[in-house]
Amino acid sequence: MTTTWNDKPREECAVMGVHNHPNAANFVYLGLYSLQHRGQESSGIVTNDKGTFYKHVDMGLVADVYSKTSDMERLIGNIAIGHNRYSTTGKVKKVNAQPFVVSSKYGPMAIAHNGNLVNSQFLRRQLEDEGAIFQTTTDTEIVLHLIARSKKGKMIEKVIDSLDQIKGAFSLAIMTRKKLIGARDPRGFRPLCIGKKDGAYILASESCAFDILDAEYIREVEPGEVVVFDKDGMSTYRLTEKAENSGCVFEYIYFSRPDSRIFGEKVDKARRKLGKMLALEKPVDADRIIPVPDSSNTAALGYAQEADIRFEIGLIRNHYIGRTFIHPVQSMRDFNVRIKFNTVKGVLKNKRIVLIEDSIVRGTTLKHLVRMVRNAGAEEIHVRVSSPPILYPCYYGMDFPTKEELIASCMTIEKMRKYLEVDSLHYLSLDGLLNSVPQKNCSYCTACFSGEYPITPDHKAIKFQLEDGIVTD
Amino acid sequence: MTTTWNDKPREECAVMGVHNHPNAANFVYLGLYSLQHRGQESSGIVTNDKGTFYKHVDMGLVADVYSKTSDMERLIGNIAIGHNRYSTTGKVKKVNAQPFVVSSKYGPMAIAHNGNLVNSQFLRRQLEDEGAIFQTTTDTEIVLHLIARSKKGKMIEKVIDSLDQIKGAFSLAIMTRKKLIGARDPRGFRPLCIGKKDGAYILASESCAFDILDAEYIREVEPGEVVVFDKDGMSTYRLTEKAENSGCVFEYIYFSRPDSRIFGEKVDKARRKLGKMLALEKPVDADRIIPVPDSSNTAALGYAQEADIRFEIGLIRNHYIGRTFIHPVQSMRDFNVRIKFNTVKGVLKNKRIVLIEDSIVRGTTLKHLVRMVRNAGAEEIHVRVSSPPILYPCYYGMDFPTKEELIASCMTIEKMRKYLEVDSLHYLSLDGLLNSVPQKNCSYCTACFSGEYPITPDHKAIKFQLEDGIVTD
Amino acid sequence: MTTTWNDKPREECAVMGVHNHPNAANFVYLGLYSLQHRGQESSGIVTNDKGTFYKHVDMGLVADVYSKTSDMERLIGNIAIGHNRYSTTGKVKKVNAQPFVVSSKYGPMAIAHNGNLVNSQFLRRQLEDEGAIFQTTTDTEIVLHLIARSKKGKMIEKVIDSLDQIKGAFSLAIMTRKKLIGARDPRGFRPLCIGKKDGAYILASESCAFDILDAEYIREVEPGEVVVFDKDGMSTYRLTEKAENSGCVFEYIYFSRPDSRIFGEKVDKARRKLGKMLALEKPVDADRIIPVPDSSNTAALGYAQEADIRFEIGLIRNHYIGRTFIHPVQSMRDFNVRIKFNTVKGVLKNKRIVLIEDSIVRGTTLKHLVRMVRNAGAEEIHVRVSSPPILYPCYYGMDFPTKEELIASCMTIEKMRKYLEVDSLHYLSLDGLLNSVPQKNCSYCTACFSGEYPITPDHKAIKFQLEDGIVTD
Amino acid sequence: MTTTWNDKPREECAVMGVHNHPNAANFVYLGLYSLQHRGQESSGIVTNDKGTFYKHVDMGLVADVYSKTSDMERLIGNIAIGHNRYSTTGKVKKVNAQPFVVSSKYGPMAIAHNGNLVNSQFLRRQLEDEGAIFQTTTDTEIVLHLIARSKKGKMIEKVIDSLDQIKGAFSLAIMTRKKLIGARDPRGFRPLCIGKKDGAYILASESCAFDILDAEYIREVEPGEVVVFDKDGMSTYRLTEKAENSGCVFEYIYFSRPDSRIFGEKVDKARRKLGKMLALEKPVDADRIIPVPDSSNTAALGYAQEADIRFEIGLIRNHYIGRTFIHPVQSMRDFNVRIKFNTVKGVLKNKRIVLIEDSIVRGTTLKHLVRMVRNAGAEEIHVRVSSPPILYPCYYGMDFPTKEELIASCMTIEKMRKYLEVDSLHYLSLDGLLNSVPQKNCSYCTACFSGEYPITPDHKAIKFQLEDGIVTD
Repeated sequence: MTTTWNDKPREECAVMGVHNHPNAANFVYLGLYSLQHRGQESSGIVTNDKGTFYKHVDMGLVADVYSKTSDMERLIGNIAIGHNRYSTTGKVKKVNAQPFVVSSKYGPMAIAHNGNLVNSQFLRRQLEDEGAIFQTTTDTEIVLHLIARSKKGKMIEKVIDSLDQIKGAFSLAIMTRKKLIGARDPRGFRPLCIGKKDGAYILASESCAFDILDAEYIREVEPGEVVVFDKDGMSTYRLTEKAENSGCVFEYIYFSRPDSRIFGEKVDKARRKLGKMLALEKPVDADRIIPVPDSSNTAALGYAQEADIRFEIGLIRNHYIGRTFIHPVQSMRDFNVRIKFNTVKGVLKNKRIVLIEDSIVRGTTLKHLVRMVRNAGAEEIHVRVSSPPILYPCYYGMDFPTKEELIASCMTIEKMRKYLEVDSLHYLSLDGLLNSVPQKNCSYCTACFSGEYPITPDHKAIKFQLEDGIVTD
Repeated sequence: MTTTWNDKPREECAVMGVHNHPNAANFVYLGLYSLQHRGQESSGIVTNDKGTFYKHVDMGLVADVYSKTSDMERLIGNIAIGHNRYSTTGKVKKVNAQPFVVSSKYGPMAIAHNGNLVNSQFLRRQLEDEGAIFQTTTDTEIVLHLIARSKKGKMIEKVIDSLDQIKGAFSLAIMTRKKLIGARDPRGFRPLCIGKKDGAYILASESCAFDILDAEYIREVEPGEVVVFDKDGMSTYRLTEKAENSGCVFEYIYFSRPDSRIFGEKVDKARRKLGKMLALEKPVDADRIIPVPDSSNTAALGYAQEADIRFEIGLIRNHYIGRTFIHPVQSMRDFNVRIKFNTVKGVLKNKRIVLIEDSIVRGTTLKHLVRMVRNAGAEEIHVRVSSPPILYPCYYGMDFPTKEELIASCMTIEKMRKYLEVDSLHYLSLDGLLNSVPQKNCSYCTACFSGEYPITPDHKAIKFQLEDGIVTD
Repeated sequence: MTTTWNDKPREECAVMGVHNHPNAANFVYLGLYSLQHRGQESSGIVTNDKGTFYKHVDMGLVADVYSKTSDMERLIGNIAIGHNRYSTTGKVKKVNAQPFVVSSKYGPMAIAHNGNLVNSQFLRRQLEDEGAIFQTTTDTEIVLHLIARSKKGKMIEKVIDSLDQIKGAFSLAIMTRKKLIGARDPRGFRPLCIGKKDGAYILASESCAFDILDAEYIREVEPGEVVVFDKDGMSTYRLTEKAENSGCVFEYIYFSRPDSRIFGEKVDKARRKLGKMLALEKPVDADRIIPVPDSSNTAALGYAQEADIRFEIGLIRNHYIGRTFIHPVQSMRDFNVRIKFNTVKGVLKNKRIVLIEDSIVRGTTLKHLVRMVRNAGAEEIHVRVSSPPILYPCYYGMDFPTKEELIASCMTIEKMRKYLEVDSLHYLSLDGLLNSVPQKNCSYCTACFSGEYPITPDHKAIKFQLEDGIVTD
Repeated sequence: MTTTWNDKPREECAVMGVHNHPNAANFVYLGLYSLQHRGQESSGIVTNDKGTFYKHVDMGLVADVYSKTSDMERLIGNIAIGHNRYSTTGKVKKVNAQPFVVSSKYGPMAIAHNGNLVNSQFLRRQLEDEGAIFQTTTDTEIVLHLIARSKKGKMIEKVIDSLDQIKGAFSLAIMTRKKLIGARDPRGFRPLCIGKKDGAYILASESCAFDILDAEYIREVEPGEVVVFDKDGMSTYRLTEKAENSGCVFEYIYFSRPDSRIFGEKVDKARRKLGKMLALEKPVDADRIIPVPDSSNTAALGYAQEADIRFEIGLIRNHYIGRTFIHPVQSMRDFNVRIKFNTVKGVLKNKRIVLIEDSIVRGTTLKHLVRMVRNAGAEEIHVRVSSPPILYPCYYGMDFPTKEELIASCMTIEKMRKYLEVDSLHYLSLDGLLNSVPQKNCSYCTACFSGEYPITPDHKAIKFQLEDGIVTD
């Protein structure tokens, strides 16, 4: 059995929250459905019915986790939070699936987290020294310990006190006995936005979750903002630290759905501009613009419009591929790619092709695709990538392979061109990237391209999850 | 729990066969993967190891049916046939899942069938009168009874004798103790083609199954042809009846994958021509051409090129939708469509939109989509359909709703336009259709558009499956 | 993973039928529960609701096969038959699970069979020559083919015509569009009895199925009798062949539950007499009588009473053992027995023990048990078996290992004594057996002890099931 | 669907531990198999491979929880603990299944617990006030919090410090990075004994777990003793509190297997004495002694020997009954009992019967059984119970229904006799009980009979588990 792999960075999570709606769990369920692309390893919902919390969490896709009507019917209450998880390789465990729920002095509390903390190792050690015991290997559990131990008075003060202690990337939905709380770290690495339907407030990682609910988009939770939804409606607070915005630019390049708003701006528009800028920076004389479907479709349309070359569908993607499949014939060439993509020969034959790809991690999938396009009769193949080369690891929630596996950190562009066996290969420049994405509200984290980290990681943080000595199913 | 529905006709099956390859079962498995779009209710493989047959059949998608390595390892032998089934509504039963296997005087026999017989009721009654007992409600079982009872001498003569008795649409793969046999009815309603890899012959409903195997496309099995693969290689025979070709034109409109060859010709090319012809026949002054993804993408590209209007991606399809999902909030408007599609507002806002759809059955999905496009801010919405109105039932293997549910048989075009709430609505003409699809090898069945049936159905045939008095899981 | 084995002959089946009760399926379900000991590989129920048949069949124990309320709710109708199957080793297949249902000229028919035919090979060949196709490897399918082909007029005449053609052991429940039919072969190898509740008739292999339903025991179906239940109540017919009774004496020795009536007589009473006779024939000077639980309990009580030696519980059986379990430590001595039995040391220590066992097949379990009893401190161990040595195969429905694996056919009693490491070993004589079991209504088949077969088997019949070339899950 | 109920008190758990054996997990698995009667809701094993802990826990019987070889193969390491759980009604949750594992300052720790704490509410509140968060509703989690927070120096000192703070019944197996620790509360309510095989030490609730492993019984862990197994072998420590022994006398009456040693003494012997004492105290002129199988078998043998009345098997128990089954016919009288028991009519008819039962909780099962025995033709029915009437709740780990449901606390003996419809009804006296059970090492807790509680429960403790506001699957 082989996992279908995807030669792309992995996002770690989707977050949802609903306050004060009789269909709270159902709304979270539908939102998680529309946010499936942000996390496919596990899904969970926790509801709050007058202080009693109901939890349903399991490994798998949303469609599998909530496959029975009875699964949903148990989730009563008018407040709910939910989470999809895309765990890092090798630590796929049910115990780590979120939302995470505990009982404390202040009653039950639940949390759902998108992002990655960089001082979790330090905080966990400190908490353990004070006698805390941990049941998961996630950094998220730390937040609940901090809240439970905070000496501050009101719940919202405890939450702010706790969030002031954690460093790194976090977009959170927290549910207490009476409140739904949303928060983003001071740099705003990960998105989180606010919607409204039938008078009820909704939190979601991307605005496409509001569309599936026919809900209204209100605004982004701001970096460093804590929003509280309770019987008095919405109120807003600030974390202590002030910092420059560092929104993850990869949300525009690849992660988010093109029909979403992220950091307050439309993804489709930004992604199209990346394609146009790429056409301006790295033009080529060719016959057809072909996207690697589906994530590069929008950038390819932008490139085609700017370059005035015909956009065509030359690669077909099989959407029935499950999460895993049996690899029956070990020797079959290009198998992992062939099971997912096929070429449309009539479109490619005897043509000079520009393949548009949004990003390259290992380069293995692309190499197979190029060979298939060549076999379909393409005369020339030019690869254009709508983002700069990925050279550095991300400590804020994206999952890349190690530096040794990042093709761009091991080869020059020319070497890569030869490895991929293409006629030309060009990336969008970092300046081109930054000039294409929305400027209004946001500056961006570009650490994976530039190595300039907005916040220095606790050195051991990266290896933290591998050091824990508990292995469960 | 609600089945996700798809407002399109349903194909009944995919057929695969491999002769004389040590990886026979694996090849069939991969071929079925690539033919998943032709049948999603059940999947099965039967292999032949020196006369012993091994069977694995279950309800579900290919990825689910063969989810364990051990499922595949049991399927030893170097001949194999396989089948994906898309059963007609309400008779989803494991007992009807194919391939169908029996033991007879001539040893074990297995069969996989795409199409629908029109004299099955008559034959079944005749066989029952002779004392035959039936275990399924499929017309396919009849073929094996006929072979077992044939008075002819050699196996191939028995097969031809039997196929001469059945009427209707059939593309078959039959496996006997020593042979793999492929056959198409004299009119050639359904496709079936021959490929080759490593010297082994392969049968498949569409050529995309050869691509996933990196196999060579040889040719279509001809209408009325019976091809036999055994130790002497390939030999060919003819059924007795001669008839005019009646290839199902819906294969080019919607069923087949665009990267396949069908009836010897490229689907992508035909589908693009449909779009171009539609643009010539039914032009409109507009700003953007938007396909209903994914099946209308190619026709939309053709329309856009011919009309010289910008092609855009204005609808996003969620590919994580499972076969069924819980419909949690009964009152939610447009729910069934919203869970599957979302609009890209920036693309649609203040634009005059041409929505390209390949066919309309009930019209309900399209009505919801139109409303979503309107809400996204489209100024005008013009629907163009790349096939004529569907007015009549199909007796040869496509599954439509009853005539009362076919929107085009109940309303005038103008009434439909009002019902859909669009600014204009036009279909491709039947002439336009026939002028666009390949002319070389084939004439076509257009019964669902014209009511001209190439072969008159036994009147009760249609109701046959509902009359049987056995209900199993 | 290791199958828990039981060093006893295996019965092939339990049969149930209910006519004219609104709870027909539920009654069959409960009856199958109480007959679980007769077959543990698969279970199935088929109901008849005004001519439409509903089927639910699966592998596993009754508790697992009907684990959902919805499984039962689907089984509507006021006629029903059911079956538990204990397949012969290595052919555990769902396709062979009964009841077996087909559609024929005369509408749907279903059958459940306990026993084994001895001319099935001959009949199957004959039917195949006439063009019949088979979907299972069971001899039971033959009966339905014969009925469907019978030239006789009424259904009951067709059934009798068909049953007159089959030879061997059969206790059957057959369900047609309007009737429930029960039948036993002319020699009456296997039991089948008639009960009544709320005016509805019930068929069951053993009378304990009536007790669970609080139903009344009426009488045994007689050897060679065919009973028909329809709108006119019960009527009775005779098969053509007359023959001497040959009830399987092993039903009294081991198969049937002690609380059942078999062949019209109480099992408990017969089994107790076997113990008493054994005490008279093979006395021993000892301190304690210890049964191998649970099947030898009654015989041990009889022995203890006759010998006036104290009956004690010296072996405890773990009833939580599932059908299979993981054998974790390959080297562990006596593991397969130890997981199932433990000794009560205080009972055995320093005592002269008589171990009562109802029958010995391979002797391996007993050898392990003896060693455990010895380790518990027993001073002497005397084994007494309440049936004669098993020397010959059964062709009428009991499943023994091959002759080479039958310990008594390979060793003298003295050799066995040494092999088992016991102080003495004695079997009940064949005369002793025949003098202990009820005399009134029945004579018995003793072929497995004496080699005198009441009906000569078609020589190939035994290997029949292994020759079929189809392997399914 | 109806849970099969058992009109007996419920034990809460079985505990296992193995130190320093390469087959540690397998030994625990087999031990849990033999201790299945002590807990049937969930089972779990945690192993320790050089400081890394591996966990496998799930709901269900041992045979189901460890159904795949791979489940066991993951559990590497030479130290292991295990647990079977019989949760109290209504709180059957996977999150509460044991062993419970956490990560702490001192590395991973795991715990398995048999018994019930009486100051858990108080301790939990205190811990929560200090900022602790809880993930389960079990009292067991408290122990790990206490250890993690202890200010003492060495691990064993921390453990003793923590166990000194908890009050109530506890027999524990604790596993740390380098040690296996066993402990019993100062009163020794629940059993725990030490065995040895191949030089490795084993902890088990009952000695039958040693028998399945062919291991040697060493001794009971003493009340108030803490035994530590590490690289230096076994060492022993004492809890601070000294108290009189209060072994749960119900272990001898009903809980433990008759082939076990409990509190250092043989259960079979004690249980037989209870039967003899009952015969002396409450004789009756009758024909047959009939146990309610299987738990009353031994006492019935004792009664029969003392009274010199014939012991017989008059009730047959169906051991194939699963944990739950569908109750198909709501109106069927005595259904819940009939599915489990049947009468042997030949044994009971026209006889004066003494039914021996070890204990009565609600009395409903017995009432049904009596009716069945009466219907089988018994002339007189005399019930004799081998323990005193249960009048009070247990706070130390047995699960009774509420006082209102305890038949003996609601009716006089004479009323009960009439309710049960028997000719006479007598219980063993408390003196008779105490004179029958072993005297050497132990005094006993008789709170459920006498109301004299060895340790006063924190009043809210009993309701504690129902107050928690988190509900998971």
